[in-house]
Amino acid sequence: MDILLQILLLIALAKLLGEVMEQAGYSSLIGEIAAGILLGPSILGFVTPNDTLGLFSDIGIIALLFISGAELNPKAFSESGRTALSTALAGVAVPFAGGILLGSAFGMTLAEQLFIGTALSITSIGVSVRTLIDLKKLSTRLGATIVGAAVIDDVIGIFLLAMISTVGAQQQFSTGAFILTVGAGIAFLVLFTGIGKKVLPGFFDLARKTKTHEMLYSITIIIAILSAYLSHLAGLHYGIGAFFAGLILGGRIRNDRSLFDSLNDFAFGFFVTFFFAYIGVLFDLSGNLLITSFTVLIIIVALAGKILGGFIGSVGSFTKMEALIIGIGMSPRGGIELIVANVALTAGIIGAELFSSVVIVVIVTIILTPIAMKKGSAFLD
Amino acid sequence: MDILLQILLLIALAKLLGEVMEQAGYSSLIGEIAAGILLGPSILGFVTPNDTLGLFSDIGIIALLFISGAELNPKAFSESGRTALSTALAGVAVPFAGGILLGSAFGMTLAEQLFIGTALSITSIGVSVRTLIDLKKLSTRLGATIVGAAVIDDVIGIFLLAMISTVGAQQQFSTGAFILTVGAGIAFLVLFTGIGKKVLPGFFDLARKTKTHEMLYSITIIIAILSAYLSHLAGLHYGIGAFFAGLILGGRIRNDRSLFDSLNDFAFGFFVTFFFAYIGVLFDLSGNLLITSFTVLIIIVALAGKILGGFIGSVGSFTKMEALIIGIGMSPRGGIELIVANVALTAGIIGAELFSSVVIVVIVTIILTPIAMKKGSAFLD
Repeated sequence: MDILLQILLLIALAKLLGEVMEQAGYSSLIGEIAAGILLGPSILGFVTPNDTLGLFSDIGIIALLFISGAELNPKAFSESGRTALSTALAGVAVPFAGGILLGSAFGMTLAEQLFIGTALSITSIGVSVRTLIDLKKLSTRLGATIVGAAVIDDVIGIFLLAMISTVGAQQQFSTGAFILTVGAGIAFLVLFTGIGKKVLPGFFDLARKTKTHEMLYSITIIIAILSAYLSHLAGLHYGIGAFFAGLILGGRIRNDRSLFDSLNDFAFGFFVTFFFAYIGVLFDLSGNLLITSFTVLIIIVALAGKILGGFIGSVGSFTKMEALIIGIGMSPRGGIELIVANVALTAGIIGAELFSSVVIVVIVTIILTPIAMKKGSAFLD
Repeated sequence: MDILLQILLLIALAKLLGEVMEQAGYSSLIGEIAAGILLGPSILGFVTPNDTLGLFSDIGIIALLFISGAELNPKAFSESGRTALSTALAGVAVPFAGGILLGSAFGMTLAEQLFIGTALSITSIGVSVRTLIDLKKLSTRLGATIVGAAVIDDVIGIFLLAMISTVGAQQQFSTGAFILTVGAGIAFLVLFTGIGKKVLPGFFDLARKTKTHEMLYSITIIIAILSAYLSHLAGLHYGIGAFFAGLILGGRIRNDRSLFDSLNDFAFGFFVTFFFAYIGVLFDLSGNLLITSFTVLIIIVALAGKILGGFIGSVGSFTKMEALIIGIGMSPRGGIELIVANVALTAGIIGAELFSSVVIVVIVTIILTPIAMKKGSAFLD
């Protein structure tokens, strides 16, 4: 089907089902993902994953995280730093350990155990952030902690991804390669925030003085995409660079209401909606999704592990109810899990059953998180 | 090169060179096209034409013509109808005849003569409209006439394109196929404007009542792309459907300043800039562009023919100076000429020399039009 028509169908149905979910009192992102599942290979087959749609989706996650950065108060964000770190660490460690235990309880090999641990560890930053935005909780101390933890989580994610790829390629464990991979990610963050803080605002202010119409908007989008691209080069998620660029320029962007509204429209009126619809397209449920007792257990470990980890990591700075909500907010799994599962399936580490379990974990956590967050956050107000 | 990086480079350099041109007192679109030529296969080779970039470019022309429609006053537009029709007809007839004469003067075959006539006939609606916008002349009676004539021009274009394709395939002339092709285009315009006027405003007003954030923006973009897609199905340019959708919704969009600004940003801050930069990428000047006496003559016929035709067609309703500017405004050639040239080259109707002449005509007319329009319109104020 014509690619422009595919995009049109995805956006139109995603907005329609999103509205249905909103009317029913849920987050529209569930409707958007449902639109992708419906139009994608799982059911109708009108839309199939390809590079062009993938690019639109990449721009969507870049826009989402740039806006999130711009909306966050940098002070609240850096104040949440220590809690975010402990939340991220415990939020990875508990489900990782849970995955290893589950694997060994089922008599699986060490490679399989490591795979399950990894596949349960990393939070989907996109779903986390979008849920917070829909609930208008992003700019709170709780929101800042979840986002901060999700960012740190992503750095841990590249470490785990490097590990599972090494295991996948049946190579010897290489300490040097490890340090390089993780070092590149951390070096990027340090350099980017250090240099970015000095360079980006000046660049932005320069754009204000130009004669070309819409220059400020263009420059902002250029900065967001460039930062995303650099973080991608450093092995991190596209969104991480965009997020920090947004954080750096946030004050200036929030002060220009017209620019801020326009960027919000660009993101939530088009590309972010596309990103979530495309998540649905990527789920191929037309194959044999096996629901076994193992599937049920892995979902429980995934949810309980992340909620418990998030709770443990944050309860020192928050009330128990808030810490519970932070755990729930960290629960969605997404892209990294699907990459890990693909790598492991291709390398023959895991079979179709385990692969399908991971896909189900991703779907269930993505759909449950906004629902549970909404119920939970009602207790906060 | 990574496709996201290609897009980033194109937008960034296009905005930069556009600003340089603005500072020098010219239209930024020249700088944008120059950026594409520089980054494209002609010089640096960092960006090469492909389907994904083509899609971004399509969204650019859709956005440009939708906004143009939304900016135009429908009353001024329909009042200009008769003059627009005579301008379009004379503006096609004179360069078409000029092309035939030029071909026969050089002893070319009838097929070659028809080819040259066609390749000189059709105005690039995108460049015309963008030039008017940059000069803030779109909403004038003169602007409405140029746009109206360019729209009619495009309908004539599909007729000529059908003819040249028939000649290209060495088929017999088929009156039935002709009537079908042109009939589909005209039927689309009649049906779309008739039904669209009844349906689209209601659809738009419905979006206002939804709970989902940014819904109005999304619906507007969905309507623009859908209308573009339908006109494309009917054999017309993407932009034509988007233009009429914009014309129908214009009053509502202009009344919502925030929406209008956001759509302008979406267009001119990103996709339209990309569209013009991509025009530059599509020019492959790395081959042998032959500049012969024929090349010089065809450029003269192209410019003189369109300016004279536009003048003759509009001088009844405008002053001589205004009619001259209308002729200049109709001068840019673009997409249809390049398609015609490709069809003819592939079919063996023309050789490399004639092909290269048409490419040069397109480049020269696109670059000269905004410069000449700017000089000319200074006489109007």
